[in-house]
Amino acid sequence: MITLHTWTTPNGRKISIMLEELGIPYLIKTVNLIQGEQFSPAYQAISPTNKIPVLSDSGIDGRTITVFESGAILQYLAEKTGQLLPDHGADRYQVLEWLHWQTASLGPVLSQLVAESTNTHLADEADRLLGVMDRQLTRYTYMANEEYSIADIACYPWVAALRHAPALGSRPHLRRWINTLSSRAAVQRGMALPRLN
Amino acid sequence: MITLHTWTTPNGRKISIMLEELGIPYLIKTVNLIQGEQFSPAYQAISPTNKIPVLSDSGIDGRTITVFESGAILQYLAEKTGQLLPDHGADRYQVLEWLHWQTASLGPVLSQLVAESTNTHLADEADRLLGVMDRQLTRYTYMANEEYSIADIACYPWVAALRHAPALGSRPHLRRWINTLSSRAAVQRGMALPRLN
Repeated sequence: MITLHTWTTPNGRKISIMLEELGIPYLIKTVNLIQGEQFSPAYQAISPTNKIPVLSDSGIDGRTITVFESGAILQYLAEKTGQLLPDHGADRYQVLEWLHWQTASLGPVLSQLVAESTNTHLADEADRLLGVMDRQLTRYTYMANEEYSIADIACYPWVAALRHAPALGSRPHLRRWINTLSSRAAVQRGMALPRLN
Repeated sequence: MITLHTWTTPNGRKISIMLEELGIPYLIKTVNLIQGEQFSPAYQAISPTNKIPVLSDSGIDGRTITVFESGAILQYLAEKTGQLLPDHGADRYQVLEWLHWQTASLGPVLSQLVAESTNTHLADEADRLLGVMDRQLTRYTYMANEEYSIADIACYPWVAALRHAPALGSRPHLRRWINTLSSRAAVQRGMALPRLN
């Protein structure tokens, strides 16, 4: 059985979207970041970097594998199921390029912009990155190429909230892509998780 | 033939170290970031995000494959050669976890700290991340586990300069790891590249 340790943040939702796309059964355990549960010794044992998400999978020959870092988890699930990431060739590295671009550039910049919303340098860099996305989506239907992939799943939760933002007025391809992903049932289900009681 | 488009920065040196470790022939083309060469139309055609490094490999069945994002390039070279990244199992994802951790957390935070050296929030986060590294290196010889991997190569150029920093006084395992990597001939050669005329 797969267990996803997550919270209501974009990095967590990458994985709930992925699991919904794959249609495989899983349990959710919430890690309340506001209450600091990510720093508990029990959680640190599976998340040495004190972050969500973490995925554990007990179905591997009777052994449990635990993976942290959203980019590594997406790759683990794609390689486990043979879906949403080609196993070789140029197509594979197109997906990994944009997966790494999301985790190394888009995510850190947008995340920090939330904390420092008046920082004009950060706002300019975020705008430049959205321009990079729009330019790529002018060439291709999806982030990597013509195929939906884990690169799209990685980017979506970070830009989903921009759907009606003024910045998208001059970025019709990015808006088209957001609308395409928003209409996927698995994306809608994944974005609604975790449910809090 | 492999061509590495690079500059004298940590992300570029990850790849020159990797190529030196693999011992395969390659050419270097410098992309002068100070003169803004990363924004030229010719370079943007192979680097849609306007960053270094980029690797092109013309030896693939007569076709050229071009890869950007240092994390994706490391994975490309590891999978091409079958070295420094296991091809399945828990060991594989231990490497990918720490590779993604470097590109998503350690790199962005240390990079930004260079630009904003008086930002105490960033300095605190950088210190926390070095603590995460030291804790991991208390458990294992290398970043992922007992095997040297692309996770070590990704982290090293970012922390190499800290070798004599006061912060390492309380982090003996991190210092031991820096010394281990510093003594590898391939690491020394890779860190000296690109040579500027």
